[in-house]
Amino acid sequence: MAWDTERTKRLLLDAGVAEFSAHGLAGARVDRIAAAAGVNKERIYQYFGNKEQFFGEVLTRELGIAIDAVPIRGSGIDAIADYAGRVFDYQCAHPELARLTFWEGLELGDPVAKEQRRSRSVDKVDRILAAVPELTREEAEELLLTILTLADASQALPNLDALYTGAQRGDTARLARRRTVITTIVRRWGRAPSPADVLD
Amino acid sequence: MAWDTERTKRLLLDAGVAEFSAHGLAGARVDRIAAAAGVNKERIYQYFGNKEQFFGEVLTRELGIAIDAVPIRGSGIDAIADYAGRVFDYQCAHPELARLTFWEGLELGDPVAKEQRRSRSVDKVDRILAAVPELTREEAEELLLTILTLADASQALPNLDALYTGAQRGDTARLARRRTVITTIVRRWGRAPSPADVLD
Repeated sequence: MAWDTERTKRLLLDAGVAEFSAHGLAGARVDRIAAAAGVNKERIYQYFGNKEQFFGEVLTRELGIAIDAVPIRGSGIDAIADYAGRVFDYQCAHPELARLTFWEGLELGDPVAKEQRRSRSVDKVDRILAAVPELTREEAEELLLTILTLADASQALPNLDALYTGAQRGDTARLARRRTVITTIVRRWGRAPSPADVLD
Repeated sequence: MAWDTERTKRLLLDAGVAEFSAHGLAGARVDRIAAAAGVNKERIYQYFGNKEQFFGEVLTRELGIAIDAVPIRGSGIDAIADYAGRVFDYQCAHPELARLTFWEGLELGDPVAKEQRRSRSVDKVDRILAAVPELTREEAEELLLTILTLADASQALPNLDALYTGAQRGDTARLARRRTVITTIVRRWGRAPSPADVLD
């Protein structure tokens, strides 16, 4: 019985990822999620509360998995550049993550489940600081925000790619170029002339 | 009579900016736009076609104005950093622009009125190349995309700011710091060790 409950929840969350990623919070339809999961829609209200609370559960699970899935390895600014490249790869493999993030920004503004997700973010900033101790905490925060913003945007804003680079969607050479741009921005963050002048 | 038509169109486009920025394409309501403009909603269909075509007119006008409103002045990579700072300032003063851009990315993917907007983008890349001739065209495109993505995100993604920097919305010291991060990324683009390695 407990196993069935966990399985049902997982099916609903998986279907929620697809629906919320495609349509956002306001546009998502609970009955489509239930139908895709093959579960009675009353279960959604029973397990997760209202649609907004369910959206919050979906985001917290998916973005929590994502932030934990890509670890920082090694030390020095090159380790953070390597991390940025792997974040980019992860976002390419899971384009729904960036879309969930952007819908949240547009539709809610404030993050759902803020305390829980904020503590994961602080942990990631701590790991950047451990790898590159010469950064200040504020610089490490700005660096992480920059990496995630640019990686997310490469998935969620194909309109800007098309306008500013003329790229077609799914152009792999273009994706590789964008990846290099992001990792290069990170590598240069720690140089020329000193990290401190980032926040002059 | 012609004057009235132009005035009515402008009132509708202005009301469209507010409504589409707040709710996106799917969430926007034509009757709310008409009511806000004080105009019969039949005029929207008469002048602009369906809701999606009207959305396209709104974006093309607003984003066209924005790209023309912030010129590139001077030469060298510092001139582009200065431009990036003024783009950021313009986005802060007009937060609806970033939201329109992000809704378009999420809801449509491809840019509306692509030909017209693409030619404005190519013109802006030409101006970057004129200011910094040592960049390749691809580098200039990536640089412009990076500037606009980061400036847009600072307006449309308050959720990421809150999560990764702990910032409250409307924190002006935080905005100033973010502005410096973006201009610094641009300045370093042209250095350390050479522009060419950006696209290695």
